[in-house]
Amino acid sequence: MTQKTNWVIIGRHAVLESLTSGQAIDKVMTDRMISLPDIMEAAKKAGVPVQKVPMEKLNKFGANHQGVAAFKAMVEYQNLDELVPHLYEQGKNPLIVILDRITDVGNFGAITRSSEVLGADVIVFPARESAQLNADAVKRSSGALLRIPLCREKDLASAIRYLQQSGIMVLAADEKAKTSIHDIDFKKPVAIILGSEGEGVAPELLRKVDDIIYIPQAGKMDSLNVSVAAGIILYEIQRQRKG
Amino acid sequence: MTQKTNWVIIGRHAVLESLTSGQAIDKVMTDRMISLPDIMEAAKKAGVPVQKVPMEKLNKFGANHQGVAAFKAMVEYQNLDELVPHLYEQGKNPLIVILDRITDVGNFGAITRSSEVLGADVIVFPARESAQLNADAVKRSSGALLRIPLCREKDLASAIRYLQQSGIMVLAADEKAKTSIHDIDFKKPVAIILGSEGEGVAPELLRKVDDIIYIPQAGKMDSLNVSVAAGIILYEIQRQRKG
Repeated sequence: MTQKTNWVIIGRHAVLESLTSGQAIDKVMTDRMISLPDIMEAAKKAGVPVQKVPMEKLNKFGANHQGVAAFKAMVEYQNLDELVPHLYEQGKNPLIVILDRITDVGNFGAITRSSEVLGADVIVFPARESAQLNADAVKRSSGALLRIPLCREKDLASAIRYLQQSGIMVLAADEKAKTSIHDIDFKKPVAIILGSEGEGVAPELLRKVDDIIYIPQAGKMDSLNVSVAAGIILYEIQRQRKG
Repeated sequence: MTQKTNWVIIGRHAVLESLTSGQAIDKVMTDRMISLPDIMEAAKKAGVPVQKVPMEKLNKFGANHQGVAAFKAMVEYQNLDELVPHLYEQGKNPLIVILDRITDVGNFGAITRSSEVLGADVIVFPARESAQLNADAVKRSSGALLRIPLCREKDLASAIRYLQQSGIMVLAADEKAKTSIHDIDFKKPVAIILGSEGEGVAPELLRKVDDIIYIPQAGKMDSLNVSVAAGIILYEIQRQRKG
């Protein structure tokens, strides 16, 4: 029930509490020899990945771990459904970046950096299959990860539906594109989904979006590094918006 | 005088021959206990860096190294003063990317990838203080390093002078910028210098360029990752050129 560092919570009660109270937790580690159904259930509900490890690994975080440790996120997460109304209240024209399974820390960091600089309002990403937002990621983002609002979602499909219901056009940048970024009116509220380098945007998300876009001079979407493609699209959006 | 692999040349005569014949050599290693003035001189002339190492390191490449090994470049280099007239002969509107001390393999690779996709004709970079163009760099460029012409120059200042004499406008992307990329006429032949992430473009090069440019929506030049900035500038050039 004690805490070895500020970033690690150990002990069954403390970990369960952290998961149910809405604290930002990156991952949970459990002793692979024991079963902790309450914690598994709470982690699943919170969209937090669970790693099964040998007990020796947990011992490093303190003697009283009781078979479980939770790692607090280095960054803070916000709720998309509080954030979006807030953007409208502030008189902003929402610009949202959605990262579908960007697991490379360098790409996640560079995209966050570009998003901050090029005026995106928030980064949305799934709890699973995203880069771990650790000290390295913060460094590679030039600290942008500590400044730009971040929404970690259990389910990107519902997040997309929610954005669309909030009047935001959701576009995917993917090699299955039909529409050039020159032919999109970016003066409207917009969210851009960028997909994993290997696989692009997930098919179940592509079915939900308002359009699939490409960079006209750049051939197929996967012909550019994803952080370069993100930078170009954000640049084009601001070029159109600011004239 | 034998060769252990295709990439390593050992023996004094063979290394000297490789340096004087204009072969693309990445670097030379010499036994730090001996002096090889002919090879030092030839390496200097060819702009090839020399590393002094313990003899044990050279032994790995074969028994007959005679205190010296040369590493063939994985990529091929071309001569800028043959390449530029050739671009004009082909009826091209030259678009040249100059990388001033980009040492990060990931950035060098990503910029090469963007350059190929966004239609740059050649990458120019200095023999010293550039990323090593090894298998990792080739991979991170998605193979573009094997396809786009590469010019490794002993002296970027003379390369810039040569380009200007050939009718090419040379621009530096640097935080000391005065001119927005929206205010440049990119329909002219153009070369863009991108500088090292830490220091930007070297002051002695900034003094020679025709203008220093910035990305209007992106604040200071160093606020974006250099490969993202390169991608945006190349995109803007092609947007203007292709309409």
